[in-house]
Amino acid sequence: MAKAKHVYSFGDRKAEGNAKMKNLLGGKGANLAEMNLIGVPVPPGFTITTEVCAIYNAKGRDDVVELIKQDVELAMTQVEEIIGKKFGDNSNPLLTSVRSGARASMPGMMDTVLNLGLNDEAVNSLAEKSGNERFAWDSYRRFVQMYGDVVLGMKPVSKEDPDPFEEIIENIKKKRKVRLDTELDVKDLKELVQLFKAAVKKQTGHDFPVNPWDQLWGAIMAVFDSWMNERAILYRKLNKIPDEWGTAVSVQTMVFGNMGNTSATGVAFTRDAATGENIFNGEYLINAQGEDVVAGIRTPQQITLEGSKRWAKLAQVSEQERKEKYPSLEESMPELYQELDEVQQKLEDHYREMQDMEFTIQEGKLWLLQTRSGKRTGAAMIKIAMDMLKEKKIKKDEAIMRIDPEKLEELLHPVFDTKAIKAAKVMAKGLPASPGAAFGQIVYHAEDAVKFADEGKKTILVRIETSPEDLAGMNSAEGILTARGGMTSHAAVVARGMGKCCVSGAGSIKINYKKRTLEMDGKTFKEGEFISLNGSTGEVYEGQIKTVDRELSGGDFGKLMKLADKKAKMLVRTNADTPHDAQVARDFGAQGIGLCRTEHMFFGDDKIIAMREMILAEDEAGRRKALDKLLPMQRTDFEGIFKAMHDLPVTVRLLDPPLHEFVPHDDKGQQEMADVMHEKIDVIKAKVEELSEFNPMLGHRGCRLGNTYPEITEMQSRAIIEAALILKKQKINVKPEIMIPLTSTLAEMKMQEDIVRSTIEKVFEERGQQIDYLVGTMIEVPRAALVADKIARSAEFFSFGTNDLTQMTFGYSRDDAGKFLKVYLEKGILKEDPFQVLDQEGVGQLVEMAVKKGKKTRRNIKLGICGEHGGNPSSIEFCHRAGLNYVSCSPFRVPIARLATAQASIMNKRSWKRKQK
Amino acid sequence: MAKAKHVYSFGDRKAEGNAKMKNLLGGKGANLAEMNLIGVPVPPGFTITTEVCAIYNAKGRDDVVELIKQDVELAMTQVEEIIGKKFGDNSNPLLTSVRSGARASMPGMMDTVLNLGLNDEAVNSLAEKSGNERFAWDSYRRFVQMYGDVVLGMKPVSKEDPDPFEEIIENIKKKRKVRLDTELDVKDLKELVQLFKAAVKKQTGHDFPVNPWDQLWGAIMAVFDSWMNERAILYRKLNKIPDEWGTAVSVQTMVFGNMGNTSATGVAFTRDAATGENIFNGEYLINAQGEDVVAGIRTPQQITLEGSKRWAKLAQVSEQERKEKYPSLEESMPELYQELDEVQQKLEDHYREMQDMEFTIQEGKLWLLQTRSGKRTGAAMIKIAMDMLKEKKIKKDEAIMRIDPEKLEELLHPVFDTKAIKAAKVMAKGLPASPGAAFGQIVYHAEDAVKFADEGKKTILVRIETSPEDLAGMNSAEGILTARGGMTSHAAVVARGMGKCCVSGAGSIKINYKKRTLEMDGKTFKEGEFISLNGSTGEVYEGQIKTVDRELSGGDFGKLMKLADKKAKMLVRTNADTPHDAQVARDFGAQGIGLCRTEHMFFGDDKIIAMREMILAEDEAGRRKALDKLLPMQRTDFEGIFKAMHDLPVTVRLLDPPLHEFVPHDDKGQQEMADVMHEKIDVIKAKVEELSEFNPMLGHRGCRLGNTYPEITEMQSRAIIEAALILKKQKINVKPEIMIPLTSTLAEMKMQEDIVRSTIEKVFEERGQQIDYLVGTMIEVPRAALVADKIARSAEFFSFGTNDLTQMTFGYSRDDAGKFLKVYLEKGILKEDPFQVLDQEGVGQLVEMAVKKGKKTRRNIKLGICGEHGGNPSSIEFCHRAGLNYVSCSPFRVPIARLATAQASIMNKRSWKRKQK
Repeated sequence: MAKAKHVYSFGDRKAEGNAKMKNLLGGKGANLAEMNLIGVPVPPGFTITTEVCAIYNAKGRDDVVELIKQDVELAMTQVEEIIGKKFGDNSNPLLTSVRSGARASMPGMMDTVLNLGLNDEAVNSLAEKSGNERFAWDSYRRFVQMYGDVVLGMKPVSKEDPDPFEEIIENIKKKRKVRLDTELDVKDLKELVQLFKAAVKKQTGHDFPVNPWDQLWGAIMAVFDSWMNERAILYRKLNKIPDEWGTAVSVQTMVFGNMGNTSATGVAFTRDAATGENIFNGEYLINAQGEDVVAGIRTPQQITLEGSKRWAKLAQVSEQERKEKYPSLEESMPELYQELDEVQQKLEDHYREMQDMEFTIQEGKLWLLQTRSGKRTGAAMIKIAMDMLKEKKIKKDEAIMRIDPEKLEELLHPVFDTKAIKAAKVMAKGLPASPGAAFGQIVYHAEDAVKFADEGKKTILVRIETSPEDLAGMNSAEGILTARGGMTSHAAVVARGMGKCCVSGAGSIKINYKKRTLEMDGKTFKEGEFISLNGSTGEVYEGQIKTVDRELSGGDFGKLMKLADKKAKMLVRTNADTPHDAQVARDFGAQGIGLCRTEHMFFGDDKIIAMREMILAEDEAGRRKALDKLLPMQRTDFEGIFKAMHDLPVTVRLLDPPLHEFVPHDDKGQQEMADVMHEKIDVIKAKVEELSEFNPMLGHRGCRLGNTYPEITEMQSRAIIEAALILKKQKINVKPEIMIPLTSTLAEMKMQEDIVRSTIEKVFEERGQQIDYLVGTMIEVPRAALVADKIARSAEFFSFGTNDLTQMTFGYSRDDAGKFLKVYLEKGILKEDPFQVLDQEGVGQLVEMAVKKGKKTRRNIKLGICGEHGGNPSSIEFCHRAGLNYVSCSPFRVPIARLATAQASIMNKRSWKRKQK
Repeated sequence: MAKAKHVYSFGDRKAEGNAKMKNLLGGKGANLAEMNLIGVPVPPGFTITTEVCAIYNAKGRDDVVELIKQDVELAMTQVEEIIGKKFGDNSNPLLTSVRSGARASMPGMMDTVLNLGLNDEAVNSLAEKSGNERFAWDSYRRFVQMYGDVVLGMKPVSKEDPDPFEEIIENIKKKRKVRLDTELDVKDLKELVQLFKAAVKKQTGHDFPVNPWDQLWGAIMAVFDSWMNERAILYRKLNKIPDEWGTAVSVQTMVFGNMGNTSATGVAFTRDAATGENIFNGEYLINAQGEDVVAGIRTPQQITLEGSKRWAKLAQVSEQERKEKYPSLEESMPELYQELDEVQQKLEDHYREMQDMEFTIQEGKLWLLQTRSGKRTGAAMIKIAMDMLKEKKIKKDEAIMRIDPEKLEELLHPVFDTKAIKAAKVMAKGLPASPGAAFGQIVYHAEDAVKFADEGKKTILVRIETSPEDLAGMNSAEGILTARGGMTSHAAVVARGMGKCCVSGAGSIKINYKKRTLEMDGKTFKEGEFISLNGSTGEVYEGQIKTVDRELSGGDFGKLMKLADKKAKMLVRTNADTPHDAQVARDFGAQGIGLCRTEHMFFGDDKIIAMREMILAEDEAGRRKALDKLLPMQRTDFEGIFKAMHDLPVTVRLLDPPLHEFVPHDDKGQQEMADVMHEKIDVIKAKVEELSEFNPMLGHRGCRLGNTYPEITEMQSRAIIEAALILKKQKINVKPEIMIPLTSTLAEMKMQEDIVRSTIEKVFEERGQQIDYLVGTMIEVPRAALVADKIARSAEFFSFGTNDLTQMTFGYSRDDAGKFLKVYLEKGILKEDPFQVLDQEGVGQLVEMAVKKGKKTRRNIKLGICGEHGGNPSSIEFCHRAGLNYVSCSPFRVPIARLATAQASIMNKRSWKRKQK
């Protein structure tokens, strides 16, 4: 066996490693090698392998030095040859960076040392060479500071400041009466270096190392050590990265863009990150460091001439001024521009993806410091993918996989005008419960939202929390802001369903319903004052901020969706309770309704009174009387929805929530019911009180209602089938699927099925007409999953209600979980909110079990999901693997789900992996 | 193959069948055959097999008649020979009964016809032979009525009365101006028969059949038909009895005890059903029907002379009067007595079990009509089993299996004085939530119960529902009555734990806390008035009813328990939160504590204040300050419990309930906390409000508390281990097991384990002393069962919290489920309350899964159950099969559980089956 190679050189478009050697060289080392191989100029250097890290952990420093000393020295010689400087030569110093790099990305977890090689002599040479004394001394003091922290393990000396060096800086700044580090002059910096070194001597008992080779070995060992630091260990634990992998160490020549007017630094993109257009673009600054470009102190210049001209027009800069003060790189350094253009083309061709590059020009020589996939807007993401498909750079599957489904959301909702938002002040932050942006006048009560809307005013409905009684108001408002409740609170779920912007659980705001005031960030807002919400970020702003509608980027979006539908195995349905929502979803490509909640239908004016009569009735006779009033109203509602969804299946869920949610809790409402029912208000009050429950989530609801009050199920079944038959006469094709909620035993499912079927038989007889229909059930109680084989004897389909299933499987009330879920996510006890991303380990186990058992009893059982997870891409992928037939989600997530179902098919066909965000 | 035999004769101590032929002859037919075989005189007859029923269902009446006509006629001839009468001979009529009898008992589900063979002629012969014309005509009219209903399918003619015959009876009674059927005379009965027959003719168009053979075939077919009647089908469905089994039909000679002074009828027991003494005993009446003995119109006489004398003494009847008016059977019919004594001995020897027999003497001839295992008291049950063991009639395993564990409960609690209870009036009925009897003065508030008790008064605490705040009051009261809540409501669970009588969920009572009144059955009770409760039946009585303590029937009980412990595979622990409870349980034989709930410890005076300070604190520092106050108090509590349970393991569960349960909800309590904490009451109010939850069951509780406020877990771990170490110094051996509640993921278990272990390490260091301990978890959230393999990486033991597991697996809140559970049980959707009897199909599946997964990870993981089910025999048997190491139950159920664990071992060793109740 050949002796293992421990050090891999790269530089001058040659490299001993390549992109495939991530296990040995780490992600960074492999990528640096790869760039060299494809002929991109990268500052030369070498990578010490991850295997050496393992040896270090096992045997310690001395063994490692003995093992690799010769190799490192040899590699350094090669670097010196390329760069024309000598490491340790104080008259022409070669400075290096020393960085970690593991197999998997562990951003910020391990240590780095920059500017290594400086000492009291070398700094002067650097000052001379760069013609910038301040730069040289600032680099030096940074190096001492960083090396002191990372390698020498300097500890805080006082409680106030965890970094002993920062304390010294603060003292000097106080003495100089300046605020910023940048205000310190060369003299100050020189003093700082002396003070830093003194501090090192005092705390460690040793002088600061002046020999660059000593510095280098110290830094290498420190990087190895950082593999085992606490935060890195915790990070690996959470991300399931084995401790044995170890980190590689890359040592690389430092380059500087601030060494005079033949130096520059910049960032560049191979395509436009905002629009996706195939235009090379970017910004640079002459004689500057990388951070100057992003810091905004100097105005960066454009790289291409075309970009520069376009910029000048927008910035209202004359052509003359532009040419003089802000020339493009294409103009100022045409040869280097040419070289950069070739490099960007090469990189995009090589990686077949839009690249975001950092480059530095040091004394007329171009160096690429980094290249990676560029971040982009949702619109750009689609355009780039579809363009690259056209350009034959990628294939169809890859084009689909390139799209982050979540980013489609951006395209579907209005956003704040980018200029207007800059001046706006964030007053509070809540959860990004339902995306989009909105502004409006504050109202505190649902009926006020309706009233304001009638007067043509835009409102934001502000509530501590919302309940089904607020539906009409939520519908009238532009956006909803709540103080309590999570991502799956009533407000959040309903708002998403309506495609309406919502910020929920903004814990810092204080609402006073009586005074009709809202307190945020110390300021009190009255009813009628304007606020603005960003439901995509959870931010709440003062005043009205203009919004703009996003347009679906027409052709490309449509083409992408078509492509997706062809690849998808599962269908996408929608959760919709109104003809309007059904139509919206259909326009977004929904292939049916997976969940039509009938309870939302009972909140209209007449309906709620009749509903309350039903609930408050003394006995079955009283309930039947009220149900007779509700029947024609329900039937009409169903007609509307069925019509909107003609030719597609509509799953109607029978009454689910506890009756308590429908009754009035205020005196006025109770008096109204007392009048309607010719009862004393005390009787009504007592009835309402009787309906209250300790844990309504686990109380008298779902099919428990239909089994204790079969007349409710009878009425609803009748309304569904009568509506279907009426439409059938009009030649409208209806496919009703009746869904029983909250079953946990076969017996209760069977009892509901019997009521439904016998009622429908009666309707068929009465009307002399028949129609096909299905009877199935939600699987949302853990027990239902456990006995799914039995329940499938009665149920023709299962729809996984993963919201409730998650609640009961974890024992989390989603209305209350906020208190500990936040902490659990912070502490890493949970990696994701299980109400947003399906918990595959636990809840998913029940889903898989139910699928298996259900199919065992009824081979062709129809399987779907209608919980919030039906619109979440990773959950959708799980559903695909579990073998479901469809997912159902809120109308505005239909396109996302369509894409995600396609991705699920592709991933499972070819062992693709979802991209890390 | 021999031709199948369809008709099996029995009589004259011979029979073609036997007890093992239940499948063919039904339970009744097989037993009638068996009695003949062992030489017991039984009225002769024959049984038509269940196979004939199947043929009837397939092919109908004609085929069946053709198939079995000859056999039936032959069998009837044999009967005629034995009895000396001829079927169809109107001058000396042989009357028969025709009864159903399936493989499995289906009590009352199918039809029966009695007195078959009567007609207008035969009735006169019967009158003459019996010398009792009224008896003959009453028998006849009953026959016509029964035959009309069962065989001829007579339907109601008016809505008021479902039975057309009863309507005729009512009319006659009106005409005669009498109230009871027995007041009708012979003339009336004759008229009734005529009217009945006319009604039959009118409705069916046919005359009532006069030929006994026609009657017989009609009755046989009717019994077959009744196999397929609706209620029988439903019953089979619910009890999983296949429709294919069919019923057998037994035709048997009627015998009458009211045919003069050489006739008699009675019931007899081979041993004393009240005490279990091995004394033959029973009652009889001369010239009477069976129902006369039980109806209480005539005073029944004793069978044995000894019994008769004892009776006379109690009833204060002189020896002379006794001899004249109430002679024993031993005296009045010495030969028949002798025969009966032999029969009873034979039956007991044969069945090796105390028998309850019905007999009739018809004209000097003894007939046994029935024998079955006799019902008995708990005390008798034990004595009989232990006696029979001594007598070598049964073996040890059988002796243990003979005991119904639930009946042991009778022995452990006081009961009402049997005389006093007779005069008492039931005012309301609730659930039998915790057994025993009690009386006391009504109080409505826990603090009043304490106050009254301090004054030496006995109280019944009456509450709408109870909460942990009421603990002290519950402890001071004699019994607890609540208007709301089920068998596992707070009141019920706590009362059972205390061994205190409780009636819960008495829905009909109305409590007014303000006025301090209780309304029951139209009467209003004030504070201080007496009521009495029977927690074993759920009955609430007016006034004070004397109670008597049951004594454990000393030697036999002890011996039984010892026997049981030898057989048991599982240990029995107890759920106990106080040294007193621990001691009680230990006295009952508990082998450790399986659940010590720490939350109950926080309700003492000082403790609750400190606890509230902790909960209401602004931040961690505030919480720690309050926890420092709690630490010594908790430590002292643990010392007490550990001491009581020395040498045995004690599982301490860390804080579990939502913090909301501890804070004051009234102004007074809130003001008190405001004073203590130097805060405004509004701040306290706001904090309390903030703690309220929509679904506290699924909220911020269990290990979610310990993970969000690690300082609580730290304090509790410290208190446990410090207490253990203090006792160790006193040479008291403590075995603490620390239990984390409500885990659902490995990460949250691990985080708790880390806190516990690191705290304990600190205590070990501080005290320079160590002790062995375990850290484990409750499995009470469905997800925990699903990922038990993972959780077992951290947990050293699992304790199944089947109360919560049932709640979450079904999605039932046990505080709210009353509303629908009652209906579900009535409608047969659920066969048993899953909070009382473990749902093996669903919840049990999770338990089995967790056991399997837990053992896979940690082979020797300790497994127990500490939910209410730990004291339920059928659930205990399940736990045995699932492979648990112990069950834990409330102290007063420990003996029951000890017995049940032994039975579980026996049943699973030898495929015994639990006796049907």
